[in-house]
Amino acid sequence: MPDIVTQPNKETLIKRLNRIEGQVRGVTKMITEDRYCVDVLNQISALQSALDAVAMQLLENHTHGCMQTAIKSGNGDAAIAEMMAIIRKFAR
Amino acid sequence: MPDIVTQPNKETLIKRLNRIEGQVRGVTKMITEDRYCVDVLNQISALQSALDAVAMQLLENHTHGCMQTAIKSGNGDAAIAEMMAIIRKFAR
Amino acid sequence: MPDIVTQPNKETLIKRLNRIEGQVRGVTKMITEDRYCVDVLNQISALQSALDAVAMQLLENHTHGCMQTAIKSGNGDAAIAEMMAIIRKFAR
Amino acid sequence: MPDIVTQPNKETLIKRLNRIEGQVRGVTKMITEDRYCVDVLNQISALQSALDAVAMQLLENHTHGCMQTAIKSGNGDAAIAEMMAIIRKFAR
Repeated sequence: MPDIVTQPNKETLIKRLNRIEGQVRGVTKMITEDRYCVDVLNQISALQSALDAVAMQLLENHTHGCMQTAIKSGNGDAAIAEMMAIIRKFAR
Repeated sequence: MPDIVTQPNKETLIKRLNRIEGQVRGVTKMITEDRYCVDVLNQISALQSALDAVAMQLLENHTHGCMQTAIKSGNGDAAIAEMMAIIRKFAR
Repeated sequence: MPDIVTQPNKETLIKRLNRIEGQVRGVTKMITEDRYCVDVLNQISALQSALDAVAMQLLENHTHGCMQTAIKSGNGDAAIAEMMAIIRKFAR
Repeated sequence: MPDIVTQPNKETLIKRLNRIEGQVRGVTKMITEDRYCVDVLNQISALQSALDAVAMQLLENHTHGCMQTAIKSGNGDAAIAEMMAIIRKFAR
């Protein structure tokens, strides 16, 4: 596995993560202000979806990039085992 | 539904959310520093688990608190419909 | 917890489960006939959604029925703990 | 995409699907016999886990087999797009 991987959509990913960080702060503020539980849960659900989207984008980058390269250079089985391990974490 | 709900474990929840905010910043830093995709995905997976735990704690507070109160005061069906709507968002 | 619970939509649930049983048999047939992996996975995904829908319907029946009754008769905390344990299994 | 794919662990997969079919029948029987909702939900949760395991096994077969072959023969991007579409269905 490579030491350094520049994501092709690096700036977009960083922007989305900055927005997610703001969403987490928003949830903290709701708890601090004693907001209604269900409203807080709705915000957390939106936040989870935003995080899922970033994870799927990274997985897509990874499979098109690193994994494809590994397969072409004959290291496919190790790269696929590694990918399956991470997919199992995100699968239901 | 009540306007204001002080979570029984408010301080703990805020601490956990502050830690989650730090974890999001950590993920952003990893992307900025061109870290290996699979390592970033592992961090996001840990972050998701931490968020899930906060959501389940809030849902538990909600059901023991607001929802039980609503049922006892005869507003059970509306409270349960509202709870089911939020559970569907977190269910697979 | 009650010994016997007749689901209000019992016939519908049984019909849906019979259809799901047929869907499982369909997946087995696809494997037997050496069908393309991605096509099989799509069928399993549809099957999972159908099962999720049955589970959410049962949970809705449970909360409107058994759980509400338990809360009204003063056994709310035990009923809610039991419900949260099952929700955690279906939550992501 | 190939027309015919014999799963390397075909017999095992068929056995597991036959067992899953039996589990679905078991759930139907529980509803027919008016069994307690939470007990039924626990059975459905076990059934979902068994199905998830079959899906992950198929995905693993697919990535080691069809997808790796596609990448080596220069059709990687299409194969990866197809795989990402199916992973999104199983991801949370």
